[in-house]
Amino acid sequence: MHTLELAKPDGRRLTLYSQRPIDPGLRAPSPFPDPLNAAPHLRWHPLRGEWVTYAAYRQGRTFLPPPEYNPLAVTVDPANPTEVPAGDWDVAVFDNRFPSLATPPPGAEPPPELIVPTAPARGQCEVVVFTQDPKSSLAALPLPHIDLLMQVWGDRTQRLAAREDIQYVLPFENRGAEVGVTLHHPHGQIYAYPVVPPVPARMQQVALEHHRSHGRGVLQELIAAERRDGVRMLYEGPHAVAFVPVCARYPYEVWVATIEPVEGFAELDERQRADLARALKTVLLKYDGLWQRPLPYLMAWYQAPTDGAPHPESHLHAQLYPPYRTRDRLKYLAGTEIAAGLFAMDALPEEKARELQQVEVTL
Amino acid sequence: MHTLELAKPDGRRLTLYSQRPIDPGLRAPSPFPDPLNAAPHLRWHPLRGEWVTYAAYRQGRTFLPPPEYNPLAVTVDPANPTEVPAGDWDVAVFDNRFPSLATPPPGAEPPPELIVPTAPARGQCEVVVFTQDPKSSLAALPLPHIDLLMQVWGDRTQRLAAREDIQYVLPFENRGAEVGVTLHHPHGQIYAYPVVPPVPARMQQVALEHHRSHGRGVLQELIAAERRDGVRMLYEGPHAVAFVPVCARYPYEVWVATIEPVEGFAELDERQRADLARALKTVLLKYDGLWQRPLPYLMAWYQAPTDGAPHPESHLHAQLYPPYRTRDRLKYLAGTEIAAGLFAMDALPEEKARELQQVEVTL
Repeated sequence: MHTLELAKPDGRRLTLYSQRPIDPGLRAPSPFPDPLNAAPHLRWHPLRGEWVTYAAYRQGRTFLPPPEYNPLAVTVDPANPTEVPAGDWDVAVFDNRFPSLATPPPGAEPPPELIVPTAPARGQCEVVVFTQDPKSSLAALPLPHIDLLMQVWGDRTQRLAAREDIQYVLPFENRGAEVGVTLHHPHGQIYAYPVVPPVPARMQQVALEHHRSHGRGVLQELIAAERRDGVRMLYEGPHAVAFVPVCARYPYEVWVATIEPVEGFAELDERQRADLARALKTVLLKYDGLWQRPLPYLMAWYQAPTDGAPHPESHLHAQLYPPYRTRDRLKYLAGTEIAAGLFAMDALPEEKARELQQVEVTL
Repeated sequence: MHTLELAKPDGRRLTLYSQRPIDPGLRAPSPFPDPLNAAPHLRWHPLRGEWVTYAAYRQGRTFLPPPEYNPLAVTVDPANPTEVPAGDWDVAVFDNRFPSLATPPPGAEPPPELIVPTAPARGQCEVVVFTQDPKSSLAALPLPHIDLLMQVWGDRTQRLAAREDIQYVLPFENRGAEVGVTLHHPHGQIYAYPVVPPVPARMQQVALEHHRSHGRGVLQELIAAERRDGVRMLYEGPHAVAFVPVCARYPYEVWVATIEPVEGFAELDERQRADLARALKTVLLKYDGLWQRPLPYLMAWYQAPTDGAPHPESHLHAQLYPPYRTRDRLKYLAGTEIAAGLFAMDALPEEKARELQQVEVTL
């Protein structure tokens, strides 16, 4: 993997990644000439016992591009800069111009004093451009390109983990207008949090208790059981699997994981990473083949917390949640899901797994 | 409050509530002639440590009414029965025909044996018809009618709480197509759970720890602080308040609560309930006045668990979440909210409170 680190005119960082050497003469463009000096802040939610982050500039974006403008396309005309330069590279990562989390620059305004505890919303929000091709998709990328992307996720996680103010790194992709995405160039995001956020914190706690009492990982044991059962499996390779989990909360929910526990992307060996890329591509092709159209989804990759401690209870895996119940009906999260947190499903995981199993794909 | 309890031809229960005596000769209609014998089941989610409920019949509903058919309107033609009878009543409550939670009838199939623990999805799902007028809304109902509805919520909670298999009762309303509602007749739902679900469980745990260490309720103290601060208040009566909380996770999030802690609707005294009705109506009218159109929202009422123990840490209140960020932009829950559970806001609660404060309403 080749990398090139650059600074944008507004101070944000850009890193290019490639399977081939990168021209060191490339320059980082930016649609924004001046630094933003973002200083989002956290407020404590006293009833839920968790933080909420506020970045009030996000709605008042002064930059209003024409509808055909794609900030993730390579810059063709220097007078109309985008976020990434032309040149020979595969994946690009840059700081989000409107971050929800950002370690405050020197001289930034302190967080407001309020009736609940507040703090600077330290951390990092990065945009990951998956490919230069605006018409492609993660599913359509060749396996070596997806493998490289997993190396990029590992590299970003390691760099962010080295910072003392970051406790958790979450790579994710929101795909499709149905989940709020307006920019269709293939891309994902990485949020690096100053705390372990509520959902990973809950999963870490459950995994830790399980590991202490059983001496094995909870996901490791579930994967072994899913493999024995077989009815919900979508991919089974030498090192990685994909399946509709027996406890799916979304009709077409799928998990992608290594068979043996690995703490994060940076800890994958080459064979594991190659097989994980095959597992992921298989699932994404099945998604798009299901109704012969791009299926929207939220994909989140869970890794170990980056607090410097060993985490044998952690097990790298993705959870993918498509928002559809059927071809033309969305699954809305409503009363019981949002207010109670107890998900109600009107489809059995076994039935949905069968639908996805029947979609044939060519890697 | 007058009540009449009836049984539907398919075995489901219907209770009518009214400010006036109800004709005891009314009969309960049903669009469905035969019992369904619903037997949803729970599966344990081993990574999150929580239950998920499965009711596989819900998608295959055999009853396909014409688009203009309103099952919550009163039955006019006995050959085309709806869910409620004509007659003089204000609020109706009946068992959902397609429940996500239902205590299994004798002889029901046991839950499937799977690679995770399973159990019958005991509990109860009720539909609450707020008014006979299909064109009305909760906001538009007269104060005595909203007061009656709160008595109904209290009566349902007490009846459900008396059952040993029910640990938590959640009245809620999903309103608007944007949150997935296809039936626009004013109505809400009540879910009675066999466990305290994840979100209330978390809030109970936080509240209990706070109460033990401070001797006062966490919401009680927050309300006192919000009243002193004043900037986010929307309604302040002698016994009830409404405000945009300092830690709002949705731009137009509002909480409605009694000033002093009350465990649930059944424990309200008359003056508290009347003032809580005023607070709620004020908020709902402000919502609809904001952009001069019905604002969609999810409204959930949190009460104490119904495990028979005293809960001085609990404090009856509603949390309302409208899905809009601005007049024409939805707030989508995406990567950080759904996958991490850490909400990111691009609007400050103080600004949104000011917008709602400026909407004048007449009760």
